[in-house]
Amino acid sequence: MDLIIKNGTVVTGKESFIADIAVKDGKIACIGTDLSMEAVKIIDAAGKLVLPGAIDAHTHLAMPFGGTVSADGYLSGTRAAACGGVTTVFDYPMQRKGKGIIETLEERKAMCDPEACVDYAFHCIVTDLNGGELLDEFQASVDMGVTSFKCFFVYKKEGMMVDDGTFVKILLKAKEVGAITNIHAENPDVIDLNIEKFLKEGNTSAWYHYLSRPEYVEAEADKRAVHWAKSVDAPLYIVHMADKEGLEAAVEAKLAGHQIFIETCPQYLEFTSEVYKREDGRNFVCSPPIKGKDSQEALWDAIRKGTIDTVATDHCPFQSYEKDWGKDDFTKIPNGCAGIENLYPYMLAAANSGKISFNRAVELCAENPAKIFGCDTKGSLTVGKDADIVIYDKDKDFTISVNNMHSDYDHTIWEGKELHGYPVQTYVRGRLVYDNGEFTGEAGYGQFVKRKAALSGYK
Amino acid sequence: MDLIIKNGTVVTGKESFIADIAVKDGKIACIGTDLSMEAVKIIDAAGKLVLPGAIDAHTHLAMPFGGTVSADGYLSGTRAAACGGVTTVFDYPMQRKGKGIIETLEERKAMCDPEACVDYAFHCIVTDLNGGELLDEFQASVDMGVTSFKCFFVYKKEGMMVDDGTFVKILLKAKEVGAITNIHAENPDVIDLNIEKFLKEGNTSAWYHYLSRPEYVEAEADKRAVHWAKSVDAPLYIVHMADKEGLEAAVEAKLAGHQIFIETCPQYLEFTSEVYKREDGRNFVCSPPIKGKDSQEALWDAIRKGTIDTVATDHCPFQSYEKDWGKDDFTKIPNGCAGIENLYPYMLAAANSGKISFNRAVELCAENPAKIFGCDTKGSLTVGKDADIVIYDKDKDFTISVNNMHSDYDHTIWEGKELHGYPVQTYVRGRLVYDNGEFTGEAGYGQFVKRKAALSGYK
Amino acid sequence: MDLIIKNGTVVTGKESFIADIAVKDGKIACIGTDLSMEAVKIIDAAGKLVLPGAIDAHTHLAMPFGGTVSADGYLSGTRAAACGGVTTVFDYPMQRKGKGIIETLEERKAMCDPEACVDYAFHCIVTDLNGGELLDEFQASVDMGVTSFKCFFVYKKEGMMVDDGTFVKILLKAKEVGAITNIHAENPDVIDLNIEKFLKEGNTSAWYHYLSRPEYVEAEADKRAVHWAKSVDAPLYIVHMADKEGLEAAVEAKLAGHQIFIETCPQYLEFTSEVYKREDGRNFVCSPPIKGKDSQEALWDAIRKGTIDTVATDHCPFQSYEKDWGKDDFTKIPNGCAGIENLYPYMLAAANSGKISFNRAVELCAENPAKIFGCDTKGSLTVGKDADIVIYDKDKDFTISVNNMHSDYDHTIWEGKELHGYPVQTYVRGRLVYDNGEFTGEAGYGQFVKRKAALSGYK
Amino acid sequence: MDLIIKNGTVVTGKESFIADIAVKDGKIACIGTDLSMEAVKIIDAAGKLVLPGAIDAHTHLAMPFGGTVSADGYLSGTRAAACGGVTTVFDYPMQRKGKGIIETLEERKAMCDPEACVDYAFHCIVTDLNGGELLDEFQASVDMGVTSFKCFFVYKKEGMMVDDGTFVKILLKAKEVGAITNIHAENPDVIDLNIEKFLKEGNTSAWYHYLSRPEYVEAEADKRAVHWAKSVDAPLYIVHMADKEGLEAAVEAKLAGHQIFIETCPQYLEFTSEVYKREDGRNFVCSPPIKGKDSQEALWDAIRKGTIDTVATDHCPFQSYEKDWGKDDFTKIPNGCAGIENLYPYMLAAANSGKISFNRAVELCAENPAKIFGCDTKGSLTVGKDADIVIYDKDKDFTISVNNMHSDYDHTIWEGKELHGYPVQTYVRGRLVYDNGEFTGEAGYGQFVKRKAALSGYK
Ligand SMILES: [Zn+2]
Ligand SMILES: [Zn+2]
Ligand SMILES: [Zn+2]
Ligand SMILES: [Zn+2]
Ligand SMILES: [Zn+2]
Ligand SMILES: [Zn+2]
Ligand SMILES: [Zn+2]
Ligand SMILES: [Zn+2]
Repeated sequence: MDLIIKNGTVVTGKESFIADIAVKDGKIACIGTDLSMEAVKIIDAAGKLVLPGAIDAHTHLAMPFGGTVSADGYLSGTRAAACGGVTTVFDYPMQRKGKGIIETLEERKAMCDPEACVDYAFHCIVTDLNGGELLDEFQASVDMGVTSFKCFFVYKKEGMMVDDGTFVKILLKAKEVGAITNIHAENPDVIDLNIEKFLKEGNTSAWYHYLSRPEYVEAEADKRAVHWAKSVDAPLYIVHMADKEGLEAAVEAKLAGHQIFIETCPQYLEFTSEVYKREDGRNFVCSPPIKGKDSQEALWDAIRKGTIDTVATDHCPFQSYEKDWGKDDFTKIPNGCAGIENLYPYMLAAANSGKISFNRAVELCAENPAKIFGCDTKGSLTVGKDADIVIYDKDKDFTISVNNMHSDYDHTIWEGKELHGYPVQTYVRGRLVYDNGEFTGEAGYGQFVKRKAALSGYK
Repeated sequence: MDLIIKNGTVVTGKESFIADIAVKDGKIACIGTDLSMEAVKIIDAAGKLVLPGAIDAHTHLAMPFGGTVSADGYLSGTRAAACGGVTTVFDYPMQRKGKGIIETLEERKAMCDPEACVDYAFHCIVTDLNGGELLDEFQASVDMGVTSFKCFFVYKKEGMMVDDGTFVKILLKAKEVGAITNIHAENPDVIDLNIEKFLKEGNTSAWYHYLSRPEYVEAEADKRAVHWAKSVDAPLYIVHMADKEGLEAAVEAKLAGHQIFIETCPQYLEFTSEVYKREDGRNFVCSPPIKGKDSQEALWDAIRKGTIDTVATDHCPFQSYEKDWGKDDFTKIPNGCAGIENLYPYMLAAANSGKISFNRAVELCAENPAKIFGCDTKGSLTVGKDADIVIYDKDKDFTISVNNMHSDYDHTIWEGKELHGYPVQTYVRGRLVYDNGEFTGEAGYGQFVKRKAALSGYK
Repeated sequence: MDLIIKNGTVVTGKESFIADIAVKDGKIACIGTDLSMEAVKIIDAAGKLVLPGAIDAHTHLAMPFGGTVSADGYLSGTRAAACGGVTTVFDYPMQRKGKGIIETLEERKAMCDPEACVDYAFHCIVTDLNGGELLDEFQASVDMGVTSFKCFFVYKKEGMMVDDGTFVKILLKAKEVGAITNIHAENPDVIDLNIEKFLKEGNTSAWYHYLSRPEYVEAEADKRAVHWAKSVDAPLYIVHMADKEGLEAAVEAKLAGHQIFIETCPQYLEFTSEVYKREDGRNFVCSPPIKGKDSQEALWDAIRKGTIDTVATDHCPFQSYEKDWGKDDFTKIPNGCAGIENLYPYMLAAANSGKISFNRAVELCAENPAKIFGCDTKGSLTVGKDADIVIYDKDKDFTISVNNMHSDYDHTIWEGKELHGYPVQTYVRGRLVYDNGEFTGEAGYGQFVKRKAALSGYK
Repeated sequence: MDLIIKNGTVVTGKESFIADIAVKDGKIACIGTDLSMEAVKIIDAAGKLVLPGAIDAHTHLAMPFGGTVSADGYLSGTRAAACGGVTTVFDYPMQRKGKGIIETLEERKAMCDPEACVDYAFHCIVTDLNGGELLDEFQASVDMGVTSFKCFFVYKKEGMMVDDGTFVKILLKAKEVGAITNIHAENPDVIDLNIEKFLKEGNTSAWYHYLSRPEYVEAEADKRAVHWAKSVDAPLYIVHMADKEGLEAAVEAKLAGHQIFIETCPQYLEFTSEVYKREDGRNFVCSPPIKGKDSQEALWDAIRKGTIDTVATDHCPFQSYEKDWGKDDFTKIPNGCAGIENLYPYMLAAANSGKISFNRAVELCAENPAKIFGCDTKGSLTVGKDADIVIYDKDKDFTISVNNMHSDYDHTIWEGKELHGYPVQTYVRGRLVYDNGEFTGEAGYGQFVKRKAALSGYK
């Protein structure tokens, strides 16, 4: 064996038990009690939790947006991921007018490959069907291992929105080729109506970012997306769900048997819209904005009940000076926040405090994204799968600060957040990439994850 | 007294009782037993029902559409109305790009006034806010007595659709001035997607009109309209509801206490989408199309429960040769059917057969539209209100035919429909305008109804 | 004419309009504007509301209970009724083991007839089917004009409870003969469990009356009653609904189309369970007890939406010394409170304050009970019906006190309640029985109301 | 190692993967790829499924009922279990008037211990609280490892029913000591009402067994049980759910976050009430009876969605001559059917046909009962747990017949049922107890399972 992690408490989505885990050739070779075979390296994890590495199913690395580029590139972003226990990152390349899907993906793959410190996968954002021709590329995308496409119901003026007809076409074509459609759901016309009104009134602070995209603006688009998915019987994945009403509609459809999957993000679980009243409110500006207490509680309730399927980050940080562009006009604030290194520690700390079980945390951050997105080699500590492993110390205290993060951004909305319990080691395919505060991996070690059909993880 | 109708069974929205009704100066002066005062004219209605005249809250007379004009002008349309027991007609003038509301209304008023055989009112269709300036005319419209505005969520290519932001602006402004917003709810992008597909496949018959606008296409728009009305707390009137899913969403919001009002039409109650498979399917082409059996049953169920508020006709007939334009391409069929003379007889025959009560029929066709649209002088047989009265013979049999109708169209979807029970007389403000098969009114007798604030009928 | 009430604002369940009302031979002869016929008596009601007399569908006069008899007999109870604008009282004779229905009713009729100051009707409480034989009397009861039967799901130890099988038999038989079943819904076993526990713990104050019959104890029985009525498709009238959860279940069934009717009482609308913590908490002891704020709000919400059908009093007062029996043991407090004189003033004051419309108040207190219970001569100001009329002064202030009530009890839970607006006159069949503070009627004037089939008022 | 099962497809509640399983000292020692350690016995399971042994959470062995005793004693019943892949049987000892819980359990343990061929556990049926004293034994029962109690809402005349107050006491006490309450939910009074009616009418066939206990009779009791559990916040396990309406109510409460668990049985999934019209209808008589198609479909729908938690058998067979007692009077038919040997083959065949996944079958028949009932050493193929293992051949065809079953009964409702796929070996704690048609275990090998707190399997 290459590695044996002994005596840890192995946590799966269903149960926790003490066992040893043996790794060979980057795979989990064996799980057992008192494994006595020889190994190159033996780790004692007694008293620690042994968890599957997390999958961050939603990031925007090196993402051009609002006249700049997000502050984390593929190198710093995946380095931070490794240090947060994330062993697979799903990035969102965006197809733009006149470009093809494969072209877009290959271009991004070429950027990412030499830089990736952990494994990575792509969803492809589709903005322009080019009169329908783009749909012909969906099969090739799936063949390449990219089995999910994303649309915006927003960013109309930016030329990124798809209308309902286009969305339905994508839903149907994605289903046909074994892919799933992701949707960013907000309503652009009503946002614009609100923005116009607020700017006219001189209301320009970050608080008006929230007020221009309140709960009902997101809820409408959530409900519409669910409606079309139900009506044409196609699977749907709603990214960054942040509001109660939309959540309830999506959950209702899911419980009625439709293939509706729901993602939320740590920022929606930790903060409320009150942050936008803060001096540094603009740092929290992302879309959809963080909502009120009711929504936050509804999200936690769904987390507990398992009706939310995944937690991912929408990681898209910007530097302070960029955020400052919107000091006097909230519409000029680049949208997005950091999170890639905080996802797993945050959710596991929630488990450690008793808010959810560790099993649920593993489901949300590892098992479910793997199943939904066809990552059949990832997501759980199962014999034969990739040895993507996190060792977690329930007793270690950690205070998040921009100084102890491994990204390239210069501030974080998580500054000062105290976590009880923290990852101490991260392994990607059996290799140690993070060790007690230090990044120990290397750029280029990360591999592209060629995925199976979406939902193939659901038997 | 000018007129006493003696011994009839007076039907209100709540009860039925035998009484005499005395009319003076066009108003109901007195209701009582054995009224013995003198009168110019005394009618014996023993054995007959005495009902308030119906209000057809949805017509398109002299309506330019699809390269032609609807087959009934104001004269023939209101003549037919009189002969069907409709004593007030709500027509739908349409504001078009570059035109103002008052201008539009005055123009139409000038056309209608000399021709109207029964009283009439206007809703104003709004298609272009002219950068918001049009909203400034809403108050003037209300002052003029037009306290309802209508939008389309469809007819996007025709330049008649409003987007969601515009719709919300209209909802808010209408509420502010005491008006109500009417919505025609269908989703244009998905319709276009379907049409494109069907035409490409060579599927061009009327059946594909239905398939391109199936239940879920209407349902989405119904739900969206309800969502915005709820979210901004403004009253909403959904015209020609035809599908079950949208109906259920609207009813759910209504029962939760929101001011959502629902109209359906006789064609949705009588026919199902099967008619589009008929040889003459194109004659039934209207938008939204007639839906399947499930929707028909859900509509009747809501009619019985009182969760549908009104039945109106969407009267918009075209001649056979015009309908024939779409023989080989369903998109070329002018949309619309006749109904103005059939509304009340149809609903009363349903009552006569026991399907609903006569009281419910009166609520749906007279009381409720009067209350919703602020017609405080109309809608019920109440002392002090206009003497708009229909005498109904429960034993009279009638078979609808284009030959016994009083419109100008050359065919009707109602051809051959047998009704048990039929109106024998119609009075508008005390004047007999219809007498046992004969129109006895005159063009120009009808008056414009200056309405109060919408919903003012609800105490 | 015998009487003309001129210039008042006539209020029906649907609308309000100024008119004169003429009365002849105890009936409403005519409603009109400027009635000019001669009359024995002419009243000017300008500026006043003219309303139908209320029907109190739930009283217990001269009711033996808890070792005593309720403090109002038929004379004082109906006198108080007259003074509160109640023109028809439904009392609840109780059939006991070994007695027949007709026997029970005749006995009570004989007691009531010489004393009744307003008209009266009976529901018959059924406690013992005598092996099924009692069901054979249902038809005779209906023939006699008593078309409603009541059961208890509680008072098990007192021998008054019916089990579920018996209840279903009654539902079915009542339906067969054209009657409706009323139910008092609480769960005796769980109440007893709670009482046993509280007494053992030494918790004996009135507050524990509430805690032994909390929301869920009533809700269970409400839901069970609704379940059986739905399952065997029989009409059901739930008396004194006081809790939110049971209400919601009943409303859900009603909206689904089942014949479920719901009554609540003024005490549940005005007070919350907090009253049981008061020094005089025992005076508020009734069953079911008054519930918490959530239930109170749900009841008002249903009142506004019209999903509650009637408001009645459950009038069953006891004297202070009787209430005091339970000073040290809440199980010894005779259950019941006064209300018969407060019902209509309370609900009309709620209307006067804008909480509901006057039309809704009329529906709840007059129209609906008449329709549900087959009182075809009562309940609305309709030509031909009994001239049961209340004249109401919206500007008169009134503070309820035991001193200005017309009952025989010595205290009232309504003491000190200030009402804006108050009835100034009550007419029963055209005769003035209450005039501005004074009872002007006489014992024995009231007549037994021979009712039609239950629900016959619903067309 | 004592045993290695090589190359099989291991099935857990979440995933399936090829691996070897090594067993030592009756426990699962290791799961891995290409395990190369030595072993006493090596089995090649290539091409086969390797599953956790099933837990039949509901049996009545040697059960006195209806004047006889169920046809399978502990020996034959657990022998049959072994041959059907059931490695743990939960039997239902019944406490009767005057007896204590521990006394009852010890008595049954003494009977079972020498006969048990597979492991066994007990739920204790409670019929008489003996004035509350019996509750004092709940803790001792839990200490003994019996952490679930069952009540009947039916069998009132038989003296086995608990009333609602008693039920609530049990719910609360069970929760306090870490146990869960099981309920058999039907309504006795309405059953008796129906029986009385049918017998009087001469309707005595098995069909009337069903008609006397129709859907709504079970639904009422299901809803009531759920109501109390919700109201007092205690966990509840509903046994043998058979009707749609009750199921929906239970699922609604579960999804709202209450600890409601639902069991159904194979007979409700396979048959409909139509069987009671058959010549041999009496053989299918069990309580609750098998319901109509709607309920069957609702049960399968819940099975698929995972809202039903477990499938167990209610195994309680009787001999033909005993069933014949009710030939002319359905009330004389002993209630109960066989199933213990059919449970797992039936559910796995459903998986094999694609109706559900094998993972779901494992959840329903093994993982979930273990989690609900605190069997921490059972229910899944997890390192450290008991080596209760079934090897399943997806290609083996099997036709159920009384001749190839291993019970003592003389007929089976499953006669002739063809299954595609069948278990070929069963291991209990590593020992082979069933081998391709032959029972290879021995009486007395089975051990009593001392359980942890109920629900302790849910993290
Ligand atoms: Zn987004
Ligand atoms: Zn994003
Ligand atoms: Zn329209
Ligand atoms: Zn129209
Ligand atoms: Zn009562
Ligand atoms: Zn009462
Ligand atoms: Zn049972
Ligand atoms: Zn059983």
